[in-house]
Amino acid sequence: MSKFWSPIVSRLTPYTPGEQPKIARLVKLNTNESPYGPSPLALQAIAREVSDSLRLYPNPDAEPLKQAIARRHAADGVSVREVFVGNGSDEVLAHAFHALLQHGKPILFPDITYSFYPTYAGLYQVEYRAVPLAEDFTLRSEDYLGHGQAIGGIIFPNPNAPTGCLLGLADVERILQGNPERVVVVDEAYIDFGGQSAIPLVQRYPNLLVVQTLSKSRALAGMRVGFAVGHADLIDALERVKNSFNSYPLDRPAIAGATAAIEDEDYFRKTCNMVIASRTALAAQLAGLGFQVLPSAANFLFVRHPQHDAAQLAAALRADGIIVRHFKSERISQFLRITIGTDEDCGVLVEALRRHLGQQ
Amino acid sequence: MSKFWSPIVSRLTPYTPGEQPKIARLVKLNTNESPYGPSPLALQAIAREVSDSLRLYPNPDAEPLKQAIARRHAADGVSVREVFVGNGSDEVLAHAFHALLQHGKPILFPDITYSFYPTYAGLYQVEYRAVPLAEDFTLRSEDYLGHGQAIGGIIFPNPNAPTGCLLGLADVERILQGNPERVVVVDEAYIDFGGQSAIPLVQRYPNLLVVQTLSKSRALAGMRVGFAVGHADLIDALERVKNSFNSYPLDRPAIAGATAAIEDEDYFRKTCNMVIASRTALAAQLAGLGFQVLPSAANFLFVRHPQHDAAQLAAALRADGIIVRHFKSERISQFLRITIGTDEDCGVLVEALRRHLGQQ
Repeated sequence: MSKFWSPIVSRLTPYTPGEQPKIARLVKLNTNESPYGPSPLALQAIAREVSDSLRLYPNPDAEPLKQAIARRHAADGVSVREVFVGNGSDEVLAHAFHALLQHGKPILFPDITYSFYPTYAGLYQVEYRAVPLAEDFTLRSEDYLGHGQAIGGIIFPNPNAPTGCLLGLADVERILQGNPERVVVVDEAYIDFGGQSAIPLVQRYPNLLVVQTLSKSRALAGMRVGFAVGHADLIDALERVKNSFNSYPLDRPAIAGATAAIEDEDYFRKTCNMVIASRTALAAQLAGLGFQVLPSAANFLFVRHPQHDAAQLAAALRADGIIVRHFKSERISQFLRITIGTDEDCGVLVEALRRHLGQQ
Repeated sequence: MSKFWSPIVSRLTPYTPGEQPKIARLVKLNTNESPYGPSPLALQAIAREVSDSLRLYPNPDAEPLKQAIARRHAADGVSVREVFVGNGSDEVLAHAFHALLQHGKPILFPDITYSFYPTYAGLYQVEYRAVPLAEDFTLRSEDYLGHGQAIGGIIFPNPNAPTGCLLGLADVERILQGNPERVVVVDEAYIDFGGQSAIPLVQRYPNLLVVQTLSKSRALAGMRVGFAVGHADLIDALERVKNSFNSYPLDRPAIAGATAAIEDEDYFRKTCNMVIASRTALAAQLAGLGFQVLPSAANFLFVRHPQHDAAQLAAALRADGIIVRHFKSERISQFLRITIGTDEDCGVLVEALRRHLGQQ
């Protein structure tokens, strides 16, 4: 720490992202990227931006992208004024903490959840209460009711991370109804792999902000694009913070690529379905090896083996060139989070696990 | 304003970027973009990133880019640990306000300067005192001395915007020496067009943070990349805030393109020199038309005509499809800020002005 630091800096606990290893020929199942590339139409759109026009600033409002998102959700009544975009859903979430959750009262989120939430809370000096998930790692909607004005807001991923467990839309709606004076942020990074989005509820709940990313189901983690859908008043707050922070968070290739990716519904459906099919197959194989596999609506599985230490398994896999994610937090230290890869990746993983479990 | 907004939101005055018009065939001299495209090597590096690898997250530390920046400034003793990168220098500046200028005391910046500074101050609730420039719009270093512990830091652009006036390195050093307990941020967005960078002072002044951008002299405004060079302790503070905000602010194409642009010294020198030559020529032509032209070390000119209203001139040019920037602020409302375009652009501008001034 240095005398030059703003006092807040020494109190921060920065987020640790999953490793981006530099080893070639790796089976990388640790950061929930798509095993398939982006839509070919997205790649074409990005390639068209690689020109002298990069000397010019991008559209500060990323309008083509907002329009594409609004069009895709037009049946749910979403208009451009109800869409916000940012440099990855991480930036969108950060602005949401700053613009909508800073009320001098603790916010609520699950005890086992996306580990960036406590970090944002630290950055924006928002107090929080970690609400324990049930024993089976499901989120109990009733835990988020009856707090009245004592809380400053609610945020949770759906499906939750790193568990993959889905909360039904009826439960999401219950939480919205029970907190009409507070913003409820539903972080749907993984919703496209089997869940039902809360976006259709936006027209009825002015306290709902739905956040999504193009890093998972749209396979554009390398381009950094996320978005939020909510009442125009909430979007306005996000825009005010964004326009006080950085006028142009999305570059030209990102706007073009994300727009094309959103518009390529066929490719999106096809690749999501492939991931879901691989997930079903992998879950069955891991169960066959004796793993407990939490029901997942995401592009990863959260698993533990009753007879094998998770950290040791992760290390053994790593020695094989297979990287999965292991969290040291208390309730989940015996779990591994395994991204759904291609069927070939999954096959390599299962063979390696079989060897390490001594079942060869 | 809405009951859902964090209280800070309604107090914000978001920044207004220069217009990005959608009219084709425009002479766009309003946002200080380069008239020349990016380095061909940068375009090639970006094109190589347009592949299935976009499904993967970028390097969270943008290491290749930091290394290229450190290498370029190796003669000044700069190492990778003294380099920070962000999504445009606007993001870098925002993090600097948050991480280094928030001390519960007012910071100082010039009254006529980059208009994003008061916006950042609002976002991070940093008080400020706007220090008047001299009558001739130069910054007087003595105004920034003798404040002791009463101030929380100092920030100024060099050359200043929108005036283009350069502060000599000896004056920069005087300000650094006079404020050993405070961070001095020197925002060098336009330094490559004729100024002397303060980067060589970093090894001697642990209170110095130099911020630069690739949007101007590197012609990559459309890619959003900026950086800072300073003592490792200052960089550490910025990294802590950045890693509490967004793990991956630079996408894969941006990291690759920026790295190649920094490495292509020849193209950089050549295009900067072309801009400087065009500036010299345009300044002479405008002076010939009766304009007062402030001495500029930037890629723009700041000019006023004693007999013609600036707003009216800007409107007349706009009707011709020529866009320049006019600021409504008190001391400079009779000035126009004109980006240096190609010689052809400058010719079109001069012809139009001649017509409007009735000198045809």
